[in-house]
Amino acid sequence: MDVDVPLLVPSEARETYIQNYRLITKNSGNLMLFAGDQKIEHLNDDFYGADIHSDDNNPEHLFRIAREADVGCLAVQLGLVSHYGADYPDITYLIKLNSKTHMIKTEQMDPCSCMITTVEDVVRVRDTGRVNIAGIGYTIYLGSEYESQMLVEASRAIAEAQRSGLVTVLWIYPRGKAVKNEKDPHLIAGAAGVASALGADFVKVNPPKKEGANPAELLREAVHAAGRTKVVCAGGSSVDANVFLQQLYDQIHVGGCAGNATGRNIHQKSREEAVRMCKAISAITIDNASVETALNIYRGN
Amino acid sequence: MDVDVPLLVPSEARETYIQNYRLITKNSGNLMLFAGDQKIEHLNDDFYGADIHSDDNNPEHLFRIAREADVGCLAVQLGLVSHYGADYPDITYLIKLNSKTHMIKTEQMDPCSCMITTVEDVVRVRDTGRVNIAGIGYTIYLGSEYESQMLVEASRAIAEAQRSGLVTVLWIYPRGKAVKNEKDPHLIAGAAGVASALGADFVKVNPPKKEGANPAELLREAVHAAGRTKVVCAGGSSVDANVFLQQLYDQIHVGGCAGNATGRNIHQKSREEAVRMCKAISAITIDNASVETALNIYRGN
Amino acid sequence: MDVDVPLLVPSEARETYIQNYRLITKNSGNLMLFAGDQKIEHLNDDFYGADIHSDDNNPEHLFRIAREADVGCLAVQLGLVSHYGADYPDITYLIKLNSKTHMIKTEQMDPCSCMITTVEDVVRVRDTGRVNIAGIGYTIYLGSEYESQMLVEASRAIAEAQRSGLVTVLWIYPRGKAVKNEKDPHLIAGAAGVASALGADFVKVNPPKKEGANPAELLREAVHAAGRTKVVCAGGSSVDANVFLQQLYDQIHVGGCAGNATGRNIHQKSREEAVRMCKAISAITIDNASVETALNIYRGN
Amino acid sequence: MDVDVPLLVPSEARETYIQNYRLITKNSGNLMLFAGDQKIEHLNDDFYGADIHSDDNNPEHLFRIAREADVGCLAVQLGLVSHYGADYPDITYLIKLNSKTHMIKTEQMDPCSCMITTVEDVVRVRDTGRVNIAGIGYTIYLGSEYESQMLVEASRAIAEAQRSGLVTVLWIYPRGKAVKNEKDPHLIAGAAGVASALGADFVKVNPPKKEGANPAELLREAVHAAGRTKVVCAGGSSVDANVFLQQLYDQIHVGGCAGNATGRNIHQKSREEAVRMCKAISAITIDNASVETALNIYRGN
Amino acid sequence: MDVDVPLLVPSEARETYIQNYRLITKNSGNLMLFAGDQKIEHLNDDFYGADIHSDDNNPEHLFRIAREADVGCLAVQLGLVSHYGADYPDITYLIKLNSKTHMIKTEQMDPCSCMITTVEDVVRVRDTGRVNIAGIGYTIYLGSEYESQMLVEASRAIAEAQRSGLVTVLWIYPRGKAVKNEKDPHLIAGAAGVASALGADFVKVNPPKKEGANPAELLREAVHAAGRTKVVCAGGSSVDANVFLQQLYDQIHVGGCAGNATGRNIHQKSREEAVRMCKAISAITIDNASVETALNIYRGN
Repeated sequence: MDVDVPLLVPSEARETYIQNYRLITKNSGNLMLFAGDQKIEHLNDDFYGADIHSDDNNPEHLFRIAREADVGCLAVQLGLVSHYGADYPDITYLIKLNSKTHMIKTEQMDPCSCMITTVEDVVRVRDTGRVNIAGIGYTIYLGSEYESQMLVEASRAIAEAQRSGLVTVLWIYPRGKAVKNEKDPHLIAGAAGVASALGADFVKVNPPKKEGANPAELLREAVHAAGRTKVVCAGGSSVDANVFLQQLYDQIHVGGCAGNATGRNIHQKSREEAVRMCKAISAITIDNASVETALNIYRGN
Repeated sequence: MDVDVPLLVPSEARETYIQNYRLITKNSGNLMLFAGDQKIEHLNDDFYGADIHSDDNNPEHLFRIAREADVGCLAVQLGLVSHYGADYPDITYLIKLNSKTHMIKTEQMDPCSCMITTVEDVVRVRDTGRVNIAGIGYTIYLGSEYESQMLVEASRAIAEAQRSGLVTVLWIYPRGKAVKNEKDPHLIAGAAGVASALGADFVKVNPPKKEGANPAELLREAVHAAGRTKVVCAGGSSVDANVFLQQLYDQIHVGGCAGNATGRNIHQKSREEAVRMCKAISAITIDNASVETALNIYRGN
Repeated sequence: MDVDVPLLVPSEARETYIQNYRLITKNSGNLMLFAGDQKIEHLNDDFYGADIHSDDNNPEHLFRIAREADVGCLAVQLGLVSHYGADYPDITYLIKLNSKTHMIKTEQMDPCSCMITTVEDVVRVRDTGRVNIAGIGYTIYLGSEYESQMLVEASRAIAEAQRSGLVTVLWIYPRGKAVKNEKDPHLIAGAAGVASALGADFVKVNPPKKEGANPAELLREAVHAAGRTKVVCAGGSSVDANVFLQQLYDQIHVGGCAGNATGRNIHQKSREEAVRMCKAISAITIDNASVETALNIYRGN
Repeated sequence: MDVDVPLLVPSEARETYIQNYRLITKNSGNLMLFAGDQKIEHLNDDFYGADIHSDDNNPEHLFRIAREADVGCLAVQLGLVSHYGADYPDITYLIKLNSKTHMIKTEQMDPCSCMITTVEDVVRVRDTGRVNIAGIGYTIYLGSEYESQMLVEASRAIAEAQRSGLVTVLWIYPRGKAVKNEKDPHLIAGAAGVASALGADFVKVNPPKKEGANPAELLREAVHAAGRTKVVCAGGSSVDANVFLQQLYDQIHVGGCAGNATGRNIHQKSREEAVRMCKAISAITIDNASVETALNIYRGN
Repeated sequence: MDVDVPLLVPSEARETYIQNYRLITKNSGNLMLFAGDQKIEHLNDDFYGADIHSDDNNPEHLFRIAREADVGCLAVQLGLVSHYGADYPDITYLIKLNSKTHMIKTEQMDPCSCMITTVEDVVRVRDTGRVNIAGIGYTIYLGSEYESQMLVEASRAIAEAQRSGLVTVLWIYPRGKAVKNEKDPHLIAGAAGVASALGADFVKVNPPKKEGANPAELLREAVHAAGRTKVVCAGGSSVDANVFLQQLYDQIHVGGCAGNATGRNIHQKSREEAVRMCKAISAITIDNASVETALNIYRGN
């Protein structure tokens, strides 16, 4: 697989970047990202409750799944990696740099998620050599009254991370009083274009919706608008396994996405089931498997 | 006792961190924190008044108690340590980095407590070798409109402190116009999870409440959600000694807490009584004593 | 062609500055700027839609046009150059330093566009020697409640960029609740004067309007007010080719402008047509051609 | 006199700190501070008007008094010391770091006084060796919506100043929409406690008031709450000399204050009378004189 | 002429400061400042319009006048000096560090003018040796809700500029919702006192007004309040030449001002007339001429 190296990666970090890109895409060019960063964004709502397996309330659950399922990368805050990473040296990590809670609703205040971890600290932990950190992530709420701060932090973090050979992933969600329809495919394509102008390697967007349209087809505008920045998508809230896997398959094969970023649909299950789900997702994302094959993996057949 | 060293602690600070962790837990793994940082938060309300012993209006009261009772650590602002520490070299200190007064109520403005002391200054005072500083503390008001600023400062302070081998403690309280119920156990578990994502070593939460439920049992969700970040709790406002000690016992033995952070229930008493209370708390927290034993210590039997 | 070198360009960067000035003006003194920075400002509205050629949704479209048409410079964000620049080493780039989306309207909040890319990062990418970066750009919304922040960032960016031999272009648009008439020629002349006080090399303004007046003549006040800072203008939204080219000709020959900054009127066409349009614009801007000659170029005669 | 040296004073600055502490207390441990920093806070209201001697409108008036009366220190902004200090090398100066005007009332906006002079610049001027700068001062408006900014600046300035051997004085006044009664003795004691937590050497508070109570006795809570941070007080607006001196005497001998900070009651008089007043104040503060003795000095007997 | 050197000027910059002070006062101690910094503050309103000579719309007009009339200093933004200075090496420049436009009125938002040029950049351009920069200027809107920011920037800029031997001039205008009467002589004296506390070398204030009073006499309070900081004044909007010159004469000889800062009354005239006006002003300010003599100069007799 050839990796396109951005110019913000200096020659001395080139090999590191290529290696990191290969790691998180498992040499497929497609991102297999397991998202475990919701402890701040959603507090304990995603980890404890009626339809959530009790395993999920332990942060170590994420690490156990990631190791066993051999994901492309586990996206979490640096604090978790700091406490668990040394015991899970085989996992590839992607550090989420910014976070906020969901406690304040848009009616009260537009969303602002600030950079709580510096790229410098990420690199410092990586350079201990005791843990495998391959990238960084940042979430932008486009259209928020605080959009400026997030655009600035994201853009500069990308430059700084790529300078150290790290791969960069943006999550971009239109949100704020000015946003009428967060799922508008044209708006989501705009978000993908912003990621491209910021020089991100990957951008995670929410699945677009439009009455009467195939959601996967709606992604095409975004995928083209993003150019060499690869688009990933996924399910959001937890849904039925075969619906989820079909969606993912379509996002890739119809919509043109390059992988997935999946959280709740994996970790809210028991470890054993979560690992099977992870492997099913990997089969589609990395190994180009059919939905049927993936479902068989998930079902343990 | 084995100490789990986070990756943010570099190898050259590893031994310092382990030693500090042992000091503030008195080799038990459980935190015995005596909180004396309310001079800013509560002005003189906690130190002078109808039900408060007159000893308490002298800041030195805190130091006398801490020395005599041999606490895990005394948590105060750096200014107090600067003025009294040299006369109390045997105390282990934890420096509270941020503070605000309680003068402005939430209806007027959401709470914002900013970092008044840099980690650099903490390390500078520690490195004089004349005083024993083992950790830092920071309070986050989750759900406040200023949450972002506190998440950023806390996260970066943890990284910087651990880099110098200091142990880190977060106080996390949901507060602000967006917060309906500060005592909601699920919300408090969310706060504990945030501490874990930020990589704190300990997190102090308020005791959860729910009608008809055992408060200690309500803590379990938080303790699990925090993972390797240890949860401590305690009484808040001053209560009857045996009620307080029973609560603490239950928080540890039923709720799974790893120690306590206690202020007013200690220092509002005369020195002699405060020391006995401290020792009673230590008995439960550190020596695994029964409530009865602890009460006997408190009563001077 | 003689180039007037500002004093903010130190002697060691003098030759670089002169060379860059010649590059982006193609030795004519007139700026031929192809603007491709709207992916953030206008999201995907300028790149995908009813009257827009499907080629335009691919960011690479901009690079293909710029290379084939041999423009003075392609103005884009650094992120795009980072991903495509190495494949288009012959293009001269001008990096747009600040950007915002158009999602929030003035009634909700006055516009604020912040510096998402530092001059230091621009210089770092330039100094890899793999891409030709000749200048930087910054947009100021004059009269916005956030005017101060933009004036500060623009002024300091100009100083820093010229220190490294980069040519500087400001886009200045009056906008905000305080602005009654964005097209007022006297106000636009004021904007041009601001650019001059900030030491910019070029300033892009919108075409002024006044009932009963020739728009090109209305530009003269601005051109004089700007002094040695050269004024460029252009069409804004997409218009008919011969109207557009006549406008441009008049802006230069009647209004005294020194070139153009053109975006949508170029890139919303198919590659082949866009290249012809670019060449037509160049003919007027650089080669002093007549409108008729330019139209013939555009029509491929 | 023994000086208690805070740990924030490093060993290499220890002797400087002790010498500065002795200078501003004239070896008595009590502060004799002549406040001349109102040119910003009160504009010209304190220096020119019906009941003010015409000498007072000349800034040099302050320097003439301070030299002739041999005060502990003259507290002014660095700008004044910069212009007059070289002609008055015998005066000991304390530099006021923050200032604001009184033009905006609390109903419009809560008070915010920002650090206009850095400790670095203070030290730079001191280190020219041409002027004697012994300390720094900072005013905090507790309970203001901008309290955070002032707590942060004050705390960090204390750390930085003590690092260079400078003595630190806080002025703390409760003020803002949230403050019901600025003179409440318990609230003022809270302010004194804040100073102690911030590690200040001295704190100036306003005289507390409570119906039916002796104002001097009301200070005791504050004096105890401040611990090793010494409390000073004084008259505020100009009052009759014997009332003023009796108040001061009582603040020290009844309330337990350690000196005074006096402005208008000194400088609004003619030079000759002001010097006598200064000496009368010094007699009480430094030489432990009776009110009668002090009045005789003031009257020139 | 003896120059009083502030302590903020270190010994190595002492000679530079003295030389600069002499240059801008033309060895008279009185400031002869030609203000050309309104291109940002007033946009093109001061340079183009019904009663303004057409010469004035060209920024070079200011340079031509300044060279020919041999003014004390020309006060402009660094950007203009950067583009024109090398062609006018004989002019002495004073760089205006902050600027804003007048587009937003006080009812919408209190005024805030931020530092768009750093002292470091001013010194960098000066040190090229190709242009004569002798000082810096900064405008403070006293009583604005943004007063703090301007006090901080001004105070620190003065310290930094004097450190490099530059002379410092403040413009201080009371303005904002809290300001009832901007021309109140007592308030203007307060502004002058603020300049003195900030350590400025000169302060420009607006002419005070009070019914039935001689405006020049009203300045005396300010001149005394400013002490060693010299006060300059002038006409503001353009007035009749002999009224203007008489005013100026009275400001100096009755009010005690030390020079003038004049803009529109000079540059709105043709070059030839502007030069004569400049020389007339110089005659009064520098050569102590009578109004009659000055008028003869202005009239070309």
